[in-house]
Amino acid sequence: MTEFGFIDHIARRFADLPGNGFEGIGDDCAVFPFGGGEALLFTADLLTEGVHFLRAATSARELGRKALAVNLSDVAAMGARPVATLLSLSLPADAAGEWAAEFMEGYREFSAEFGAALIGGDTTRSEAGITINVTAIGRAPETHVKRRSAARPGDAIFVAGELGASGAGLREIFAGRLDAPTAVVHRNPRPQVAEGLWLGARREVHAMMDLSDGLASDIRHILDRSGVGARIEVERIPVASGADLRTAACGGEDYKLLFTADARQADRLAADFRTAFGAPLHPIGRITDGGGLVWLRDGVPAELDWQGFTHY
Amino acid sequence: MTEFGFIDHIARRFADLPGNGFEGIGDDCAVFPFGGGEALLFTADLLTEGVHFLRAATSARELGRKALAVNLSDVAAMGARPVATLLSLSLPADAAGEWAAEFMEGYREFSAEFGAALIGGDTTRSEAGITINVTAIGRAPETHVKRRSAARPGDAIFVAGELGASGAGLREIFAGRLDAPTAVVHRNPRPQVAEGLWLGARREVHAMMDLSDGLASDIRHILDRSGVGARIEVERIPVASGADLRTAACGGEDYKLLFTADARQADRLAADFRTAFGAPLHPIGRITDGGGLVWLRDGVPAELDWQGFTHY
Repeated sequence: MTEFGFIDHIARRFADLPGNGFEGIGDDCAVFPFGGGEALLFTADLLTEGVHFLRAATSARELGRKALAVNLSDVAAMGARPVATLLSLSLPADAAGEWAAEFMEGYREFSAEFGAALIGGDTTRSEAGITINVTAIGRAPETHVKRRSAARPGDAIFVAGELGASGAGLREIFAGRLDAPTAVVHRNPRPQVAEGLWLGARREVHAMMDLSDGLASDIRHILDRSGVGARIEVERIPVASGADLRTAACGGEDYKLLFTADARQADRLAADFRTAFGAPLHPIGRITDGGGLVWLRDGVPAELDWQGFTHY
Repeated sequence: MTEFGFIDHIARRFADLPGNGFEGIGDDCAVFPFGGGEALLFTADLLTEGVHFLRAATSARELGRKALAVNLSDVAAMGARPVATLLSLSLPADAAGEWAAEFMEGYREFSAEFGAALIGGDTTRSEAGITINVTAIGRAPETHVKRRSAARPGDAIFVAGELGASGAGLREIFAGRLDAPTAVVHRNPRPQVAEGLWLGARREVHAMMDLSDGLASDIRHILDRSGVGARIEVERIPVASGADLRTAACGGEDYKLLFTADARQADRLAADFRTAFGAPLHPIGRITDGGGLVWLRDGVPAELDWQGFTHY
């Protein structure tokens, strides 16, 4: 069973249990409207040694930042502000001392920068390998919460940064070039927290998510949940320095925001974004009534075998 | 560094970050008052193969129930109702199929029985061993939330069930007697959810927590946080069938509630509890002004080397 197959299986088996006011599995975060027009959001991510990171290639401090970054990115991807996290660490004896202290320094750096309190968690020893789980909690006005299911036919599709650097960096790491510029990017993801909050407050932004498994894979979640299709112009995909187009479309762990917005207000949105952040939004295509995901090259549908990236 | 040493270190390093309305590290759960006199509570627990369980000794279904039980126990220990969980699973290839499906059936059984929705989580493969993290969310009227810091001199100290069966069962498991009655208890902890909710609603109940590391260890958290001492009459510690007194005082994973209550209302509280649950509350001693933890045998202080149980 694939990761998504297992999650679908679980979602079906648990569907008849009471929701207790929570909107659960299917988005970057679960949502709990708590009154006064506000909601709390919840997400969890697990990092496993040998699967998500190699101790030889990533410093403990970098990993502390990254463990938090991937969760804050999920919170930002729904337009919410990160407010708190719970951190669980399973540590073998050779990581329980200095490694753990350095990890916590990195975790603290991003906690401070992005304003999230550490409110709990668990630590235990491990017989084999480091495992890290972070549960992040966000907060947002209910009207700001952006769901994968909200894309509408005619919407413009945007990404909020250049893609592929992390995927290119992972290849450099596997080739032993740990300090190549893209490898440094791979080890140091930055969640687009301010950008997500800003986009959350814009009504013309409809569906949003973060890119963790690659555009080619992740956009399908928006299409599935919204019951729409998409046409993407491959020339418009913004390719990061050091990456190629295929890696930009298929590589994982860029943690840039992917969203759809009312096309009539797209130019103004992009101009306002540039004013706010000094960086462009990248329009890459359009949401369609149906027809699945179509890659366009020079305006013509192209058969590409692009798939996203999976850790599972 | 011990587990508690590491947690203290973390709590100090993160103390100057904004709390964002969360009351964090130091109790069984973090508390977030969300308006209307209500609060959400948050706790996380990690289970690691070879440390917290042996696959040969615990079925996947039992472990699914147990992973949830230990978290629901933390929620109940503060007087709250469990409402939702996030589940993260790191699974080696030989546990990704049937084992995972059976685990989820057990997890679903307790989710249904105790009314908690599964709202998110993560699954990933593991290079070595199963790791499970559960984050549980509870909900309670703010006035029902019981903290470790609320014990008062003169309070009666109670446990809400017999102790030691789980610790005795762990010894049976290590001796290869997997089906001994206490081993079955060890593999099948039941959180005192209804009892915790009931005690949460009683104003005469002051401090409360659940017994996961053993009375001898856990009660020190109440004493430290409340700035008080305790005198415990060892003859009054309720010893479960198949256990001995020392195991009842020092063994881990009983998941019974430990609490303090106004001594003037203790008899009535115990009578009402018996009416509600058909089971007794066990008074084991008194909270004192100071003087640390004193074990009394026949009313006389006894020097005992009793310590709690630790996985770290």
